[in-house]
Amino acid sequence: MSVLIQNGLVPVAEGYETTSIHLEGDRIVAISPDLQTADVCIDATDKLILPGFVNAHTHSPQIWQRGLIRPLPLELWLADVFDAASSSNLDELYWGAVSTAVETLLSGGTCIMDHVLLPWNQELEAAATVAQAYRDVGIRAFIAPLMMDEPFLAGLPRGRSRTSQPYPRSTADILALMESIIQQVHHPSTGIQVAVGPTGFHRCSDALLQGYAELSDRYNLCRHLHLLETQAQKLLAQEKYGESAVHHLQQLGFLDHRTTLAHAVWLDDRDLEILANAQSTVVHNPLSNLRLGSGIAPILKCRKAGVNVAFGCDGAASNDAQDLLEALKLGTILHTLTEPDYRHWLTPRQTVQMAALGGAKGVNLADQIGTLEVGKKADLVMYDLTNLSLLPRTDPIRSLILGRPTHVVEAVWVDGTQVVAKNQPLKIDRQTLHHHLLTHRQQGQQVQFQTIHQVEPHYRSLLPDFVQLDP
Amino acid sequence: MSVLIQNGLVPVAEGYETTSIHLEGDRIVAISPDLQTADVCIDATDKLILPGFVNAHTHSPQIWQRGLIRPLPLELWLADVFDAASSSNLDELYWGAVSTAVETLLSGGTCIMDHVLLPWNQELEAAATVAQAYRDVGIRAFIAPLMMDEPFLAGLPRGRSRTSQPYPRSTADILALMESIIQQVHHPSTGIQVAVGPTGFHRCSDALLQGYAELSDRYNLCRHLHLLETQAQKLLAQEKYGESAVHHLQQLGFLDHRTTLAHAVWLDDRDLEILANAQSTVVHNPLSNLRLGSGIAPILKCRKAGVNVAFGCDGAASNDAQDLLEALKLGTILHTLTEPDYRHWLTPRQTVQMAALGGAKGVNLADQIGTLEVGKKADLVMYDLTNLSLLPRTDPIRSLILGRPTHVVEAVWVDGTQVVAKNQPLKIDRQTLHHHLLTHRQQGQQVQFQTIHQVEPHYRSLLPDFVQLDP
Repeated sequence: MSVLIQNGLVPVAEGYETTSIHLEGDRIVAISPDLQTADVCIDATDKLILPGFVNAHTHSPQIWQRGLIRPLPLELWLADVFDAASSSNLDELYWGAVSTAVETLLSGGTCIMDHVLLPWNQELEAAATVAQAYRDVGIRAFIAPLMMDEPFLAGLPRGRSRTSQPYPRSTADILALMESIIQQVHHPSTGIQVAVGPTGFHRCSDALLQGYAELSDRYNLCRHLHLLETQAQKLLAQEKYGESAVHHLQQLGFLDHRTTLAHAVWLDDRDLEILANAQSTVVHNPLSNLRLGSGIAPILKCRKAGVNVAFGCDGAASNDAQDLLEALKLGTILHTLTEPDYRHWLTPRQTVQMAALGGAKGVNLADQIGTLEVGKKADLVMYDLTNLSLLPRTDPIRSLILGRPTHVVEAVWVDGTQVVAKNQPLKIDRQTLHHHLLTHRQQGQQVQFQTIHQVEPHYRSLLPDFVQLDP
Repeated sequence: MSVLIQNGLVPVAEGYETTSIHLEGDRIVAISPDLQTADVCIDATDKLILPGFVNAHTHSPQIWQRGLIRPLPLELWLADVFDAASSSNLDELYWGAVSTAVETLLSGGTCIMDHVLLPWNQELEAAATVAQAYRDVGIRAFIAPLMMDEPFLAGLPRGRSRTSQPYPRSTADILALMESIIQQVHHPSTGIQVAVGPTGFHRCSDALLQGYAELSDRYNLCRHLHLLETQAQKLLAQEKYGESAVHHLQQLGFLDHRTTLAHAVWLDDRDLEILANAQSTVVHNPLSNLRLGSGIAPILKCRKAGVNVAFGCDGAASNDAQDLLEALKLGTILHTLTEPDYRHWLTPRQTVQMAALGGAKGVNLADQIGTLEVGKKADLVMYDLTNLSLLPRTDPIRSLILGRPTHVVEAVWVDGTQVVAKNQPLKIDRQTLHHHLLTHRQQGQQVQFQTIHQVEPHYRSLLPDFVQLDP
């Protein structure tokens, strides 16, 4: 079936132009103001058309912890998240992924990297469940099962010596389990891929990271992990390796052009050089970084050093929404704090490019998605410029990124299939989603937060080592 | 007419309780779970009820510049705003105020401080027009005509010597004009007040500020002005006064308990002490401050020093939305950057209190609004907790402040009158508002930005004097 999106506004080098886009199957086959017919014609008058963004870091099961966790730094927040997550089941997992996918689509995203914590001893079935959710919604997705082989306290500076119990699963078992998940769930031709997803260097052995790199090479998988989200992690890297975590990951062979690194707040100049040379991608999650007090990722420095940047929402426990446009707004204006010369501040157009093409590069699909180009996959989003929240009409991209657009996503195509129309998902019933979230209502109020009491005294002993960030 | 809002959720010291609220005329006359009858009963099951917030700093005519201005620091941004604003007329002024009021109501605000730039030589009629807009929407409002008696360049360090032309209106004429506006527009009993609104010390003479203080005393008016929004202004204060701007304002008698100071980013410890003693209010506009690269207002230090804090959206030219909940989210999470000890981070409940009671104190109405209390004015907002963006149900205030609530304001009462129902303004037709914003569509693209070329070389010469804020 061919689709003609007629007379839409697209950004060009200077300003915008009105044109039409012809889709055939999963591809963009023509872009021109002169296209006339197709099986289906869509009127895009007063619509802005952009390539879909990549939500390059989130944790879909955290939808169930939205609004649940107190303002706390990552290491203590994590203790609360662990307590809250213990009740996860496959039904929750499914609807958490559906909800995340729908929120991503309705805020301009067409692709998602889900760093998903799967229920213990149900990992295979759970990964298949999440994959099914994304297939049901119709979003492009990477499922990166979040795993580790070191216990909680080992992830804190001076915590390794206080860890008496080993992690309850061997490195070899984790790698074997991961390979089973790959064999069952990784189907690139359907738009659902598996990525290797160690939680980060802070709770993974070298053996696990190297095993993941080997799996990634063998199956051509993306690699995704947390990196230097907090000062505590930076201190830990010195303690664990006697060197920078980035350099250590490079030495292990973990950094390549398919590697996305969530957060990367505490990079130094040498780290930037290594990441640029490795062609790895930093995923900026500005909302989560502020909520958890992690700091400001050096995005302007990344760009200057030639490090690719993408955007993510992070999970709903650390950013209690999954709205990419909100992350893009903050990720645009936040960096004025780090740079007095306004000529280096991010423009909304640069942000759009990072969110689309930067994300596509990160997940190794830059030849397929991330721009509106003939021959590329039809992953695109149509925004309604007559929506009250985007009025009056001035500069559409500036209003979209710097405003507070609400219900502006008129239509979305993923892989050539329309999956959103009139701001509603087409392949999933939003009322059913609403019902599942609504009936879950009382669970949150019953969580007993206990783990934090074990972690907090140790964490507090670290505070004097943290540099005050006061401007 | 009496109204009973039945079985709503309200925050109490520990958690929440379900209760009913009885309104009679403009007042809350009872709060109790046992109330049974009234002329009108409203079912508030699954609704959260909070006191209305105060949007304590905005510029309503800037609605027309939403999305129009490039990322620039305040001083250069202002040059673009001046060029863009030159076409303002009374019809635009009216619909700009209506739009600002509606967005404020639909994001939890019931009161607005409009630091409004009125068209030259139409000030009286224009102020009346803005007042009419607020009366038509039904929001409580303070109209603070933005005035100055020094030319543009005088507001920049080393700019005074480059200013050849005096300001084209005398200080005496400005004060006389202001008094006419007060006499015509200031009607506290209708919920519409006038406030004195000098733009700030940076473009006002001592005579103007003292004249305003005298008018404020004579008519019991609030005082509102910009304060130390940028580093440039801090440098200017040293140059202009040889001392802190805050100390100078205190010496002039401008600081009192009715004074709200927008931004106050560049305060030092002594300034905080002066503001606490004067019982003046800092208005935090975090979105605008990031977009313009102004820095982070020291809100945690304000609280510690006993300085009252309120929240504002600022105008749509520097925060391309007028959503108070968005400002509250950023204003909650931003301050983790300034404080490594998480025990001092803001909680969503503290934010709600600042936005409601803090705002009420700022506009000298703490005895009337800002809390849900018997005897106070019925300025309250009912949020729908079954809205998809607030699900699953966990902690309602945390979800409201840290999430991305969309269309959650179910009902609003101002002065006892219901002005919003089912997320729609009741007293104004939203379709008509939409029509006015839509038909204005092409104006923005025709603006010629010229003034910036005169200002930019001078501004750039100041950059080396600015401290790098890099974390």
